[in-house]
Parts: sequence; structure tokens; C-alpha cells
Amino acid sequence: MTAVETGTIEGAGPEQLVRVPLGSRSYDILIGPGLIARAGGEITARLKGRRAAVITDANVGPLYLEALTDSLQTDGIESVSLTLPAGEKTKNFENLIAVVDLALTARLERNDMIIALGGGVIGDLAGFAAGIVKRGIRFVQIPTSLLAQVDSSVGGKTGINTRHGKNLVGVFHQPDLVLADADALGTLSEREFRAGYAEVAKYGLIDKPDFFAWLEKNRADVFAGGPARIEAIAASCRAKAAVVAADERENGARALLNLGHTFGHALEAAVQYDSARLVHGEGVAIGMVLAHEFSTRLNLASRDDADRVRKHLKEAGLPVSIGEIPGDLPPAEGLMEAIAQDKKVKSGKLTFILTRGVGQSFVADDVPSSEVLSFLREKYPQ
Amino acid sequence: MTAVETGTIEGAGPEQLVRVPLGSRSYDILIGPGLIARAGGEITARLKGRRAAVITDANVGPLYLEALTDSLQTDGIESVSLTLPAGEKTKNFENLIAVVDLALTARLERNDMIIALGGGVIGDLAGFAAGIVKRGIRFVQIPTSLLAQVDSSVGGKTGINTRHGKNLVGVFHQPDLVLADADALGTLSEREFRAGYAEVAKYGLIDKPDFFAWLEKNRADVFAGGPARIEAIAASCRAKAAVVAADERENGARALLNLGHTFGHALEAAVQYDSARLVHGEGVAIGMVLAHEFSTRLNLASRDDADRVRKHLKEAGLPVSIGEIPGDLPPAEGLMEAIAQDKKVKSGKLTFILTRGVGQSFVADDVPSSEVLSFLREKYPQ
Repeated sequence: MTAVETGTIEGAGPEQLVRVPLGSRSYDILIGPGLIARAGGEITARLKGRRAAVITDANVGPLYLEALTDSLQTDGIESVSLTLPAGEKTKNFENLIAVVDLALTARLERNDMIIALGGGVIGDLAGFAAGIVKRGIRFVQIPTSLLAQVDSSVGGKTGINTRHGKNLVGVFHQPDLVLADADALGTLSEREFRAGYAEVAKYGLIDKPDFFAWLEKNRADVFAGGPARIEAIAASCRAKAAVVAADERENGARALLNLGHTFGHALEAAVQYDSARLVHGEGVAIGMVLAHEFSTRLNLASRDDADRVRKHLKEAGLPVSIGEIPGDLPPAEGLMEAIAQDKKVKSGKLTFILTRGVGQSFVADDVPSSEVLSFLREKYPQ
Repeated sequence: MTAVETGTIEGAGPEQLVRVPLGSRSYDILIGPGLIARAGGEITARLKGRRAAVITDANVGPLYLEALTDSLQTDGIESVSLTLPAGEKTKNFENLIAVVDLALTARLERNDMIIALGGGVIGDLAGFAAGIVKRGIRFVQIPTSLLAQVDSSVGGKTGINTRHGKNLVGVFHQPDLVLADADALGTLSEREFRAGYAEVAKYGLIDKPDFFAWLEKNRADVFAGGPARIEAIAASCRAKAAVVAADERENGARALLNLGHTFGHALEAAVQYDSARLVHGEGVAIGMVLAHEFSTRLNLASRDDADRVRKHLKEAGLPVSIGEIPGDLPPAEGLMEAIAQDKKVKSGKLTFILTRGVGQSFVADDVPSSEVLSFLREKYPQ
């Protein structure tokens, strides 16, 4: 099973290295404990720049910013920093301009870097800034949430939100290095960790049935921390890296990464992105169950497969049905409207990631919306 | 002589086509009369999208916007438009956000397009917006100034200005089609045309000595309009396309396009970008003469070459010495400061484009600043 075969690095304890192969834009992802405290050394070993602008948020900054800047200083990297409010609303033009201004005031040159210290919000915003300052400077991701470590910090998608929707403005800008410090996950809430786990399970469901089976056996160890957790993160990064390398700019196969996301995004929109009711990973968990059930309804997958997915995510503590979302939801027609507005819609046709079973997902780009609507009506809480 | 060999297209009158070879991002530049009035047909022949946001300015819009949108409509392209104030100050974050908002309100998808109708300012701003809406949508350039036709609309550099300087924020985003309508140049002032001509001559000076000799013979015809003008534009686009194809992201050879620009930018900064005193092309003309004279001083080029460059640009009506700039200038030390701040400076070393003679330019990346300063002191008006 390739997802678990890669060994640990000799003498480095449980640390793992994943190389993302993108030609001249290839980069390393390091996964292991204690990486924030020795970030300076890992950076200077790989990058030429000796100036950095560190972007973080009000939750993460107080925990790790000092350790990071101390390490940078020790290894001769001069840094400035900016701590932004935590939360999705931070991904706006105003904060983008603030980050750009910080980088230009610090006179960063093309080899210098912006460092994102935080979750997906900080990574998306700081990466966008790194992509446009001087038409692209270096970018280092230090993701501190499980979701960011296994998903948003790998692949080069950056962006902000506007009144028209989420992530509608941004660039593709690959990081030059990702340092996924496993210790940082110790301060996540149980709910945040579970939400990130939905994306871990997703890689198994897309095209790695052995990895999904491994997760079914090792879920408790992954949640407990230690080598199994690092293995799960590394396997997820390898899976995402392979998809990204095959389709850097999302023209084809990369769409598979959206398994569960079309339904998931619509549910997030339906609760108006109120994270008290539903966070992204929870929407993806429900969405993946729905995608498998919808595939069963279309006679593509077996009922057993859909049941297996539902069971595993439920055991992980994730919601697996629309009815579990607290509070009122718009009617099924309202969800359809949100799905139609999703940016993955091309010329009015509905594109869905469907599946023939666990680890056998595929892109279907001509799904009749009437089928989706009647399926949703069935799945709605009565 | 390759620069003039390419024939005209059969049956299309004096129209010329230049292909920019950039793999999957390759695109056509059409140069000829009447292109705005048949833009719709040229676009639908090449691009799939049928929705467009047209960005123009208050000088160009009243002249050509209606003809353009009529043509788009005739060929089934739905469009919205935005007319911004004319001038360099338009290249700011506020207008970038306005263009992005227009594109998102019009629900442009990745195959739809932003069309820039105007000079370099509109092209740089609209191209930046096209590069970040949905992480990159299609972009069509309809440059209406000579400078934009031969320089800024080819090569994919986009950007805006900030309080830290010009073009310090932007992306590389290649156009999908460039329509250089020769008729649009008829409404340019003589001064604007001359300024664009400095960039035409630059291509000869970089590495096309035959083209420079051709310009020396045909300058009057190029200024008069007709086939010689179209040939000069096409030769310039071919020259720039070749450089861009060799070095899309400006890591090496593309720096040659900055011949005359290090001195030129410093002079523009010295007059605080007051276009009544100095426009970009005039700064480049003076800068190219200085680059040749500086190369002579370093015993790289002959005095005859420098004289020949000065004579040709002077005959074209361009300024060729610092003393011709009206009003007071900062001392030579002030120019040096502006040069050191230029974004092409790497790790404190001065990078200059020097020359061994007409058409023999090269990148020198370790020029002692003391040499530059004493040269500038000599060249300063006493």
C-alpha cells in the first residue's frame, strides 16, 4: 500500500518529508514535531532570502509567533509580523492590502518571503499577497490546523472572499516550503480536529481504498496523536500532491479534490457560513456521505459502500446527514440555487464528483439538476 | 532580415499576425486597420466565452467603446463596461477592486473575458483583474496607444502602483488575444506617438541591428502611417514575443527589455511622474542614449554607436539628454538614490543593461555604483 509505505527519515524521529513535484516550482512539505521552533534552520537550508513578513491571527499568534520569530532571528532571517483577527471574515481586500503594504514597507525582494502562521484563512490570504507582491515572492506555509496541514497549505490555491462569494478572487501561487508542525495540533479543539479529519478521509475515498481501510483500523490512534497521526497527515499530503502535480491549475483531475464539496459548500452557504452551526469539514463530511448516497441512487455505487462511508465518519464524531445541522435550513430548492451558483458550474451544466465505490471517485460533468433536486428532497429532514 | 521578412496575410490587406509561443498559453497578436470594428468576430473565432467586461478610460471610451460593444453584440458576446479616469493614477487598488467587482457581478466564468480598451494603464489594471478573478479568466488586449501596442500589451506583465512605487503589485497573466488596431493611433498626439516610438527603436538596439537600420531609413514613413507603421509594430511585437517566450517570468534574458529603463525610471521618479515634464517613452529615449554613452565610457561600445543612437532619436523628435527635461531636477546623488530603489536591484548590486554597440545589448549585474554616479555628474546640465 503506497500511502503508508514511505518510511520515516533516519535520525529525525517520526518526521516525514513529502516532495511536491512541480518542475521549477517543486517544494518540500515537512511533517513532524517541533518544526516551528526550528523553522529558521529549515528555511535557510532551502531558500536564499533573509527577510520575511510573518502573517498570523489573534488565536495562533499568542501561541507560536514568538517561538517562530526567535528561530528566524537565530538563523539570520530578519522579520516583521502582522497579527490579524481570527476567522473567515479576515479574508478580504482590506487585509490583503495591509499584508501587501507590510511586505513593501519591509522592502522584501523576490527571494524574500511571506510566512503564513495559522490555518487556512491566514494561508489563503498571505499566499495571495505573496503571489502579487512584485508579481510573486517566496511563500512559506506553517499550517497550524489539521485542515490546513492536509489540504489548504498544499497545492497553491490562494484567495479572499467578496460579497459575491468565497474564494472568488485569488491566484495560483505555490509555496516554496511547508512546515506542518504536528505539535501545533495539540491546541486544536476536538471539533476542529474532526473537521480536518473529514479531508483526510476524503483522500482515501477519492482513489486510495487501502488508505481508507487503514483509517478504519487506525482512527483512534490518529486522533490520539503520535506516529499514526503524522502518517495520516503525510499520506494526505502525498495524495494531494499527486493530484496537484497532475493538474496544477484545476483543468481536469484536480476537480476530484472537490468530492463532497458541492453539497458541502451549498450547506455552508445555507447556514450563511455560521461556524457555530457548521464548519467546512463538517459540510464536507455530510457532502461526502450525500455524494456516495447519490451515486448509489444513480446505480453507480453499492449501498454497502455508502453505509461504510457513513459509519466511519460517524465514528469519527462528524455529522453525516443534513438533519444534524442545528437550526432552520432553506428548502431543498434553496440548496439547488446555491449549488448552481458554485463556481465549479461550467456553462450552466452541473459538475459533480460521483463514485463507483470507496476509492473510485470520478468527475461527472453533465448531471441533470432535476435528479439532484429530487435526491435532496428525499434527504431533507421531514 | 528576419524582422521585416514576415509577409502580409493574403486578402487581408496590410494586416499582420504575430504568434507568441508560450505552450498552452500561446496567443495571437493581430496588427492592422479596422480591428476594433470587427473585434467580435476575431474573438469568437478564437475564444469560447460569450461574456465580457470591457474596461476603458475617459479619453478612449468616447472614441471607440460603442464601436467595440456593437461588434461584440453582433457576434453574440454580451458585455458590460466600465470607464475609468485617464492617467497613471488610475492604476490603484480601488480601481482594481472596481474591475473585479464588475466581473463578478457580470458572473464571468473562467472562459469569459475582461477586455482592455486603452493604453498601458488600462491594460495593466484590467489584466491584473483578469489574473485574479476566479484565479484567472480570459483576457483580451485592445491597445490604442503605440506604446501599448509594441510593449505593455505583449508579455503578460500586469500591475498597479502603490505609495511604495510603480508596478510593485501585480501578476504575470498572458492575454489570450491582442488586437492592435492601427487606426486607433490616428487619434494620438504627436508627443504620445513619439514616446511609443522610443520603445520601437529599443527593439533594434537590444539585438536587431538590421531593424534599427531599417528604422533609420523608414522613420518618416512609420510616422506617416500605412504599411511601414504596421511593419514597425509587427517587428516590435515579434521582437518582444521572442524575448518573452525565452523568459516568461523575467528571471534572465527578459531583463534586456529594460534597456534605457534604469536611467529612464529614475528620471520619471525625479520629475515625480509629472507627464507634462516627461512621459515614460521620453525617459526611455534619454535612458537609451545614456546607456550607450555609459557603455562607451566603460570602453564597451564605440563613440560612433552612441552618436548614431542619439542622432536617430533626436530626428524622431525625442529628448536625448537630461538637460532637455524642463524644470529643476534633484542632484545626481538623488538620481542614484532612485536607481538604487528600482526593483531590478538584487541584494544591493546594480543591474544595468549595457551594450557593445547597436543591437548588442547585454545584462551586466555588477556595475559599481561609483562609476554610475560619476557618469551622471558629467551628464548633468551645468
